[in-house]
Amino acid sequence: MGGYDNGESPAATASGGEGGVILGVDGGTTNTVCVCLPAAMPPPESPRAVPVLSRAVAGCSNRNSVGESAALETLEQVMTQALTMANTDRSAVRAVCLAISGVNHPSDQQRMLDWIQDLFPVHAKFYVENDAVAALASGTMGNLHGCVLIAGTGSIAYGVTEDGKVARAAGAGPVLGDWGSGYGIAAQALTAVVKAYDGRGPQTNLTREILRKLELSSPDELIGWTYADPSWARIAALVPVVVSSAEEGDEVANKILHDSVQELADSVVAVVRRLTLCGEDGKDQFPLVLVGGVLEGNKKWNISGEVVRCISKVFPGVHPIRPEVEPAIGAALLAWSHHRKGQKLENGS
Amino acid sequence: MGGYDNGESPAATASGGEGGVILGVDGGTTNTVCVCLPAAMPPPESPRAVPVLSRAVAGCSNRNSVGESAALETLEQVMTQALTMANTDRSAVRAVCLAISGVNHPSDQQRMLDWIQDLFPVHAKFYVENDAVAALASGTMGNLHGCVLIAGTGSIAYGVTEDGKVARAAGAGPVLGDWGSGYGIAAQALTAVVKAYDGRGPQTNLTREILRKLELSSPDELIGWTYADPSWARIAALVPVVVSSAEEGDEVANKILHDSVQELADSVVAVVRRLTLCGEDGKDQFPLVLVGGVLEGNKKWNISGEVVRCISKVFPGVHPIRPEVEPAIGAALLAWSHHRKGQKLENGS
Repeated sequence: MGGYDNGESPAATASGGEGGVILGVDGGTTNTVCVCLPAAMPPPESPRAVPVLSRAVAGCSNRNSVGESAALETLEQVMTQALTMANTDRSAVRAVCLAISGVNHPSDQQRMLDWIQDLFPVHAKFYVENDAVAALASGTMGNLHGCVLIAGTGSIAYGVTEDGKVARAAGAGPVLGDWGSGYGIAAQALTAVVKAYDGRGPQTNLTREILRKLELSSPDELIGWTYADPSWARIAALVPVVVSSAEEGDEVANKILHDSVQELADSVVAVVRRLTLCGEDGKDQFPLVLVGGVLEGNKKWNISGEVVRCISKVFPGVHPIRPEVEPAIGAALLAWSHHRKGQKLENGS
Repeated sequence: MGGYDNGESPAATASGGEGGVILGVDGGTTNTVCVCLPAAMPPPESPRAVPVLSRAVAGCSNRNSVGESAALETLEQVMTQALTMANTDRSAVRAVCLAISGVNHPSDQQRMLDWIQDLFPVHAKFYVENDAVAALASGTMGNLHGCVLIAGTGSIAYGVTEDGKVARAAGAGPVLGDWGSGYGIAAQALTAVVKAYDGRGPQTNLTREILRKLELSSPDELIGWTYADPSWARIAALVPVVVSSAEEGDEVANKILHDSVQELADSVVAVVRRLTLCGEDGKDQFPLVLVGGVLEGNKKWNISGEVVRCISKVFPGVHPIRPEVEPAIGAALLAWSHHRKGQKLENGS
């Protein structure tokens, strides 16, 4: 490639330098983040050393939540904003990685590619991935090999091999049984409160703690509270109450967390097994990037530690990584490393 | 009471006769049914002998689904229509029983009572109940004693004692763990298909059967299908596929049905225990009215039969009843029997 081959306003690309810019987008259900990197940057020494030119934030870009046209509008808006903040424009874009929640099928991917190609210069390169890929890349410096486990409001395990094979497990939302997710943990806790109240289950401190947190006076009122707003994130926000109840010794809360740890570990094990990420003998090291509110924090009840312990019983080579940068930077590093390989090939030929 | 004490258009009450009319309303999440009975009818010999003057049908009246004002509008509309069809009007109304899905709390009940009192003559009597009460009354000829188990899209166990104590279990919707419901059974089956596909669970014929039913080509597409429309009834419509797969010997489908049977039985046992419906020694007979799509039909895999068998291990006095009339008639019989007792008291004094 090399130089400007599109003829549009080269002056505006100043901040990206001669090499133009790279965009990385992490499109989630809560919000969408876009970062802009210089395409010609040298390989950064550490994740925190990545020279981010700008960072823009917008709302939800999951088409399953807001519909396709609203999602595309949000994506265009956040990319335009990041370019403006970096004192450049669309003509400077060399590569874009869109890592978008809800992109689960090749047909979703193709539709996004068709759309984005019309926004940027003809020679730019585009990569459309599930948002899990950005999270993986944020822990591996853009290197696509290993498995990522995301457990926030939802949960997913997603793995990629060096030769481009991918596999996922879970990530299908609460109706389809993501019981290890923040939503899953909290919904099980709410169910336990209802069952204790109506006589189907054992008494639990979750009753007192959840009612206090929600400022309700009786478990009867939980039904109205639950269905007043179907947002998954609102339910998932109860996870800290479950963790603190478990830490104080509540057996019901402890069982919920142990079951969820097993669900999360099962999803990683399924992905690692399908991709043979641990080698033929099952003993090779492989990176496991851990992301999301359920896996963060250094609490007494260490959910991510328990998940890794469960996985290591099956695959002792699991190498846990907690990313130091956000997934949008992972997406940008991914686009940047593809772009760099392409440049090397061109320069070499 | 006796005679017309409201002074409004007595001529219009012709079809109800001199005694006026009774309205029974069964307000569900799918639709709302109102029936009109003559207030002065003698006790019917059988449920099918109830002399129904008219029957009107409208849409959803669950305030949790459509909001309070839409729910009240639907209720007013369906009652007006039933009165018109019976060639009478509001002035002839002697008693109304509203049995409405989503009425779970005394404050819900009071708001409905405040509202309905303004629609009808001052001396009329009003009863606001959960829709489960209408289903119970439809199996007991308006006699409020026993337990009803409803398992359609949702599930609930609801019991009433002769001295007016009530208890319920489940009926809290899918987020709060109604796993015995039609929605619960189908969501577990969808989860099993996803788990088989991503390597977390055993293979199952549910995959082939559910994909065929939904005309999808891969389990990947289930995520889009599931969240394209959040209606619980749409998910619950997959129950027959689960039952037929279980009948053909699929182990995963059989486990889902056995677990759901246990959930449904647990909910009845919890209610019966709290109300001591089976007497102090746990051996008294008590009526268990069985209602809803999951409990109907005479399939090889007999869900309601299995539920009764589970309950009878704990409470051998369980006496299953399958109502011959719809819940709206149960609601009307309930209002009629209250009205009749009131009349007897007045005539006796």
